Amino acid sequence: MRIPILKLNEFLLVSVQIELDDQTALQFQEDILNKIHEVGARGVVIDLTSVDFIDSFIAKVLGDVVDMSTLMGAKVVLTGIRPAVAITLVDMGIVLKGVPTALDLEQGLEKLQQELEG
Amino acid sequence: MRIPILKLNEFLLVSVQIELDDQTALQFQEDILNKIHEVGARGVVIDLTSVDFIDSFIAKVLGDVVDMSTLMGAKVVLTGIRPAVAITLVDMGIVLKGVPTALDLEQGLEKLQQELEG
Repeated sequence: MRIPILKLNEFLLVSVQIELDDQTALQFQEDILNKIHEVGARGVVIDLTSVDFIDSFIAKVLGDVVDMSTLMGAKVVLTGIRPAVAITLVDMGIVLKGVPTALDLEQGLEKLQQELEG
Repeated sequence: MRIPILKLNEFLLVSVQIELDDQTALQFQEDILNKIHEVGARGVVIDLTSVDFIDSFIAKVLGDVVDMSTLMGAKVVLTGIRPAVAITLVDMGIVLKGVPTALDLEQGLEKLQQELEG
């Protein structure tokens, strides 16, 4: 099962609306990096509004996606992290340091635009 | 299986990246109408770039989604219809009359904005 990736101008938009198991997360990692390369994306917004639960493996994959995308020259913003997910992450000691976050997709896109201009 | 629906400001974005079987198409019809109602969307872009094949049932469901969304006050633009899909549709006599179309997601969003302003 694959997570759809939308291209909007120079950005990629991803809304995770299925349960993230290990296989799906790794497939997503591969897909998003390929897509960044393919379209020459300058930024990526990953929206987690519909994600109720993140375990340590998924958190690591997401962190890796951010690092790998940055290496490739694309900025990543995570949006829509739910209270329960934020609690779980911090409880597990995973703070996704240095990863820009925003409330929702709109604000994530704005943040990307600001970061790329500033 | 559900097709993810993204909310971007007053618009909804849908990129169909899985095979559309009858059940998925009907589920999508229900989901998109509920989402329009829930967020008060003024427009919807449905991107079919990744769809290789449309049969008469799916074409009818898509046409119905456009009519139903219009009744609810939201404009729909279809984007990314592939040559093979366009050929199949016209061969079947399905022309999706009166449905605005555009080349890709970006142009679809522009078209929506123009239609809502004009």
